[in-house]
Amino acid sequence: MIRANDPALHSWIEIAADSEFPIQNLPFGIFSTPERDPRVGVAIGEYILDLCVLGRRDFFVLTDLDPTVFHRPSLNDFIALGKPIWRAVRNRVSELLRNDNDEISGNSDLIRDCLVKQSDAELLMPVHVPNYTDFYSSLQHATNVGSMFRGPENALLPNWRHLPVGYHGRASSIVVSGTAIHRPKGQTRAPDAAAPTFGPTRQLDFELEVAFIAGRETALGQSITPYEAEDYIFGLVLFNDWSARDMQAWEYQPLGPFLAKSFASSTSPWVVTLDALEPFRVKGPEQDPRPLPYLEFLGSRHYDINLEVLLQPQGSGPVSISRTNTKHLYWSMGQQLAHQSSNGCNLQVGDLYASGTISGPGNGSYGSMLELTWQGTQPLQLPDGSERRFLEDYDTVIMRGFGERNGIRIGFGELKTQVLPAI
Amino acid sequence: MIRANDPALHSWIEIAADSEFPIQNLPFGIFSTPERDPRVGVAIGEYILDLCVLGRRDFFVLTDLDPTVFHRPSLNDFIALGKPIWRAVRNRVSELLRNDNDEISGNSDLIRDCLVKQSDAELLMPVHVPNYTDFYSSLQHATNVGSMFRGPENALLPNWRHLPVGYHGRASSIVVSGTAIHRPKGQTRAPDAAAPTFGPTRQLDFELEVAFIAGRETALGQSITPYEAEDYIFGLVLFNDWSARDMQAWEYQPLGPFLAKSFASSTSPWVVTLDALEPFRVKGPEQDPRPLPYLEFLGSRHYDINLEVLLQPQGSGPVSISRTNTKHLYWSMGQQLAHQSSNGCNLQVGDLYASGTISGPGNGSYGSMLELTWQGTQPLQLPDGSERRFLEDYDTVIMRGFGERNGIRIGFGELKTQVLPAI
Repeated sequence: MIRANDPALHSWIEIAADSEFPIQNLPFGIFSTPERDPRVGVAIGEYILDLCVLGRRDFFVLTDLDPTVFHRPSLNDFIALGKPIWRAVRNRVSELLRNDNDEISGNSDLIRDCLVKQSDAELLMPVHVPNYTDFYSSLQHATNVGSMFRGPENALLPNWRHLPVGYHGRASSIVVSGTAIHRPKGQTRAPDAAAPTFGPTRQLDFELEVAFIAGRETALGQSITPYEAEDYIFGLVLFNDWSARDMQAWEYQPLGPFLAKSFASSTSPWVVTLDALEPFRVKGPEQDPRPLPYLEFLGSRHYDINLEVLLQPQGSGPVSISRTNTKHLYWSMGQQLAHQSSNGCNLQVGDLYASGTISGPGNGSYGSMLELTWQGTQPLQLPDGSERRFLEDYDTVIMRGFGERNGIRIGFGELKTQVLPAI
Repeated sequence: MIRANDPALHSWIEIAADSEFPIQNLPFGIFSTPERDPRVGVAIGEYILDLCVLGRRDFFVLTDLDPTVFHRPSLNDFIALGKPIWRAVRNRVSELLRNDNDEISGNSDLIRDCLVKQSDAELLMPVHVPNYTDFYSSLQHATNVGSMFRGPENALLPNWRHLPVGYHGRASSIVVSGTAIHRPKGQTRAPDAAAPTFGPTRQLDFELEVAFIAGRETALGQSITPYEAEDYIFGLVLFNDWSARDMQAWEYQPLGPFLAKSFASSTSPWVVTLDALEPFRVKGPEQDPRPLPYLEFLGSRHYDINLEVLLQPQGSGPVSISRTNTKHLYWSMGQQLAHQSSNGCNLQVGDLYASGTISGPGNGSYGSMLELTWQGTQPLQLPDGSERRFLEDYDTVIMRGFGERNGIRIGFGELKTQVLPAI
C-alpha cells in the first residue's frame, strides 16, 4: 500500500524535480482531446496516462473492475467501486510507471497511445456532484468575518466550537479550472439607502478552500464516525467558492448564503487521493471544548498542505497575495463528514464537501479579499500600480496547493479562473 | 390545449365524483409492480395508465418522442423533452381516455395490459432531483416565526418584501410518500444549559409546502423573467420539509438551516402539471413595495389550491390540524425562479423548488407544529386524549391538496409519512 508513496520511486517518464505530479501522486481526473472523448486519466509529470486505453488493453485485471468504467465523462462510476479498487488501480498505475517496469515503457506504440501531454488536453470537471456542502471550519476566517460584522467580542457564535458549521451549496454551478465566470448581478442595499437596487456586484470575492469528494454512499438514517469517514473520502481538490459580498450582506438573514454564492464555484481538475496525501498527515489544533463523542477522534487527522492565491490583472503577471495551509483548519474532514451524517442524512458518491475559506494567522495568510483588504478598507497594492478592494473584471485568480516531504512535492496543479464582466 | 381541461370531458373509466384524478388532471409519476419495473404512469381515477406499455405499442407518434423515455426510473428524461412534448403527451392521454375514444377501451386485452390499480402499485420517487431550493415565501409563516424569535416588531427582516428569501436544501434525502422517516439525532442546547448535548430531537416538526419541478435547463450565466419561468416549470408536488426545531435553533447561525432539515424531506408521488392547474390561477397578494423590475409581473400568477394537514397518532384515525391555501403565498413561482436565475445560476431539469411553509391567516391555517402550538406553548388536543407540542414517534403526517372548479377536483393525492424512533 505504502509502496506507491515511497520517496525512492522513480518513473521512466522524465519528471521535473519540482513537479507536483511525481509518481508518488497519481491524481485522477477526466480529460479529452480532439481525438479522445471524455475519459479517466492520471496525471504524471507533464503527461496524462489514459486509463481508458490501458483498460481496453487489459492492463487492469482486477475482480470487480470493468475497465469500461474508465470510458466515462466523470469519475463517479470508478469511485463507486470503492476504496480497495481505487487503491489497486493507483498501485497498478504506479507499477506501470516505475523505471523498472517495461510493460508500457518497452512499447513505443503503446506509449504514444496512452500518454497525452497535459497541454494538449482539455481537463474537464472530474466528478458529477450530486450534493455540495460548504463548511466554515477555519477558526481564523470565522473570527475575521465575525469581527467585521459583529465586533471582536462576538466574533465567534456560541455553536462554532461545538460543531462544524456548514450549509448546503448549489451543485449545478460548480465548474472546472479554466472556465471563466461572469460577474453576477443581484440585489444589494447600500448601508444608507432606503431601498435595494439590482445590478452587477461591486464586491466580487474568491474564497480559498479545499474540498473532498465522497467515495461511498450511506443509507438514509445511517451515521458514520470520524474514523470511518476516511474510508468514505476518495480524494481532495482545490476549491474556489466565489462570493458576492454586497449581495450576501443583504440576502443572508435568516437562512444563510444563497445567490451570493450560487452563481459559480470552481474546482481544480485533478483529484488527489487520500493515499497520496498520507505523508502529510499532522495533528490539528487543540479543540477546546472537547467535541461531543460523535465528533471525537485521536491521532493525526489533519493535513499539511501549502496553499497560495495569486491575482493576475489583465495584461500583467500573477502576484502572490496569500499563503496559508490546510493544517490551520479547526475541524477535520472526518469530523465534517461525521457531522454531516450524524442526523442520518445520506451521503452519495461524488458529493463535494468544502472546507470553507482557509485563513491562517496573520494577514498575509487570509483566504479572501474580504479579509485581505479588511472589507475594502486596506486595499491591496499591486505591482502594476493598481489597487484592489475586491476583484475587477478580467482579473484572473489562481490557486495552488501542495504538500512537500523528502524533496517530493504532491500537488493539485492550478485552479485558474478569469472574471468576465456581467452579462 | 385547453381541451384537456374541459369540465365536460368524461372518461370511459369509472371515476368517483370526488376523485382527485379525473380526466382533467392526468398527473405524471413513476410506479412499479411485482411484474412491472419502474416506469412512467399517469393517474386516472383509482388507476394508473402505463405509458411504457402504450409507448411500446406506438400510441404516441410524436416527432422528438422516443417512447422508451417512458421506461425509466424517473421522469427526468421525459421532462427534458420540453413543454410542447409534455402537452402533446397529456393531450394524447386525454384523448385515449375519453368516453368517445375506443383505441384502448375497445380492446380488453390492452386495458388489462395498460391499466394498473394504484393500490396494486408502488408509487416511487417521481424525479431525480439534482438541486433543491427551499424558499420562505409565506408572509404569515415568516411573520409567525420572526415574532417568536425576534418579537413582533422585528418579525420580518428588511430583505423579506424585496426578494424571495431562500436557501439550498439537501437533495439526497428527498423521499417519496410512504417512506417512513426516523427521528433524527443532533446537537441541541437547552436555553439554560452551559453546553450542547447530542441525541434524538425533542422538537420534530413538519412543514406544509408545495414544490415545483423545473422542466428546462438554463446555461450558466443565463437569467429568466417571471413570465418566461412558466415555460420552465413542469408541474407541482406536495412537499413536507421535515424540521428539527431544537437542532435548528442551535445550528442555524450564521449560515442557515443545515442538519435540522437534511435528514429527510418528503414529496407526493404525482406531479400535477401547470396545464392541469390552469383553471386555478388567481391574483396573488398585493406586493408592497413594488418588486424590482427583474421580479415584476402582471396578471394571475398564483394558484388557488386548498391544502390540509392531518395527524394520525398510532392506533387512531387521522385528525385534521390545519387548512390553508397556496394563494396565501406572497411570492409567485415565477418570481422564485426568476430570482434563482437572476445571478446566472443554472437551472437543471428535475430541480425542486419548494415554497417554504405555507401558513394562512388564523391559527387553524398554520403549516407547522411550531406555529400551530406556538413553540409548544399551546399544545394541540387530540380526540384520543393525547396532546402534541411536536411530533411523537409513530405519528403519521398526511398532507393533501386540490383545486376545485365546476365540480371538478384536481388533486395531488396523499403525501403520507410515518415517524419512526431514532436509530
